[in-house]
Amino acid sequence: MILGAIEAGGTKFVCGIGNQNGEILERITIPTTTPAETLKQVIEFFQGKQIDALGVGSFGPVDLNPVSPTYGFITSTPKKNWNSFNLIGELKKHINVPIGFDTDVNAAALGEMEWGAANGLDSCLYMTVGTGVGVGAIAEGRLIHGMLHPEMGHILVRRHEDDSFQGCCPYHGDCLEGMAAGPAIESRWGQKGSELESNPKVWELEAYYLAQALVNYILILSPKRLILGGGVMKQEHLFPLIRENVAKLLNGYIKHENIFGKIDEYIVPPVLGDNAGLCGALALAKRL
Amino acid sequence: MILGAIEAGGTKFVCGIGNQNGEILERITIPTTTPAETLKQVIEFFQGKQIDALGVGSFGPVDLNPVSPTYGFITSTPKKNWNSFNLIGELKKHINVPIGFDTDVNAAALGEMEWGAANGLDSCLYMTVGTGVGVGAIAEGRLIHGMLHPEMGHILVRRHEDDSFQGCCPYHGDCLEGMAAGPAIESRWGQKGSELESNPKVWELEAYYLAQALVNYILILSPKRLILGGGVMKQEHLFPLIRENVAKLLNGYIKHENIFGKIDEYIVPPVLGDNAGLCGALALAKRL
Repeated sequence: MILGAIEAGGTKFVCGIGNQNGEILERITIPTTTPAETLKQVIEFFQGKQIDALGVGSFGPVDLNPVSPTYGFITSTPKKNWNSFNLIGELKKHINVPIGFDTDVNAAALGEMEWGAANGLDSCLYMTVGTGVGVGAIAEGRLIHGMLHPEMGHILVRRHEDDSFQGCCPYHGDCLEGMAAGPAIESRWGQKGSELESNPKVWELEAYYLAQALVNYILILSPKRLILGGGVMKQEHLFPLIRENVAKLLNGYIKHENIFGKIDEYIVPPVLGDNAGLCGALALAKRL
Repeated sequence: MILGAIEAGGTKFVCGIGNQNGEILERITIPTTTPAETLKQVIEFFQGKQIDALGVGSFGPVDLNPVSPTYGFITSTPKKNWNSFNLIGELKKHINVPIGFDTDVNAAALGEMEWGAANGLDSCLYMTVGTGVGVGAIAEGRLIHGMLHPEMGHILVRRHEDDSFQGCCPYHGDCLEGMAAGPAIESRWGQKGSELESNPKVWELEAYYLAQALVNYILILSPKRLILGGGVMKQEHLFPLIRENVAKLLNGYIKHENIFGKIDEYIVPPVLGDNAGLCGALALAKRL
């Protein structure tokens, strides 16, 4: 079975051809400019490729409701030209195979469950911390959608007592994304996170916010594994700090070995690494 | 089809006989004393009743993992004598029908979906605010379990700037339950909530905390309806305050008519009222 995959991001579209084992056989990266320009190249890539199905994990917000008239649209994004764009409709015009569609982070969660850090489990959560904070989740074996789709990157967090940064989320100011995404780090400290590796205060605050989010995710979803990826999480020293803060905040309330003895295996980096998104799209195609 | 239902609570067990339409034909209330004493009366009630299946919604924490050796147990409760009690095992010894088991709040969510405020939807959330804060949820048509089961009553909230109350959760101090459950109100103000109806500050704080929780639930689970019950929610004037705070905190980020125009139909009281728990247990039996 030959599967097509599209990781549709705000800065680039990554397209790939792969198989049901999660192996990527061929890939191409296309800059996200206008829908017409970008989609033209995407469609050209897939022409003549003989794929059996296509999976698309997209930046959002997107309409995932199969009975909605705007199913498959990128909806209210502030990204110029992409607001209300019928992504799946446009692809369907040119690529005549079943198309699976979900958010980029739901796709990544599914990819990690199929072939990565959550293999064999029926629930997990995938969080990416980079330009924004995005989170996808699987519960009871199913990707969570709902009224819209989860937007867990914007949950409310408590301010650290040493932190006077006002937050940079245009909607909420000091929500999780506003306090902990890459741009928040840069805005608070005047330098990119990658240049601040040796400043422990930067990571103390970062772990404090991310751990609060994980604690709320654990209490609300009770996932069997938490997978943390994205540019900011390349700072691997964040993992022990986050785990320590999670255990401290839960304070013995959740009596499970994942928290008490095995937290190193519970809060983990993605196994698929930077392929999580593309493999996730492949997993969306595999399910069809 | 005749169904049995048990709402197993920390102060009382409510047992009932009903049918697949959610009608309760007979009921009895038994005080929760010791497991031996309480279960004896429960079993007597069901003897000779010819039920086809039994549903049990229980106070927790409980073990819901069907392959666990302690499936059906009430696990680490501080409630004397009930810690590590094999509730379902004990019932099975005497009542020879299929038994469905879940948390009391998951059962209530299911009951509201079958016959109440979330009828026809495939996701919802049921929150009870009383002696504690308990929450059950359905996503993609399934009750959410996971590593353990959700414990959403204990999520982290931001303190109101006018509130110096330290919080009364023995684990977390000022988590949601520690700040907003009935005992928190009584401890903060020196009177029960039911005696404080005319003090607007009480309800300003209460709505502030409950709305934060709902915002995080919406961002994490994206449920199609939020149902709020329990003793504290008998103060019906809380509903408009909570809705107003939810809309304010989301600040236009979730673009959906449920938030913008129809929030009165989105955040609602239970239709089953005080029967939510028992009907929920009936719904657990119906599914078998």
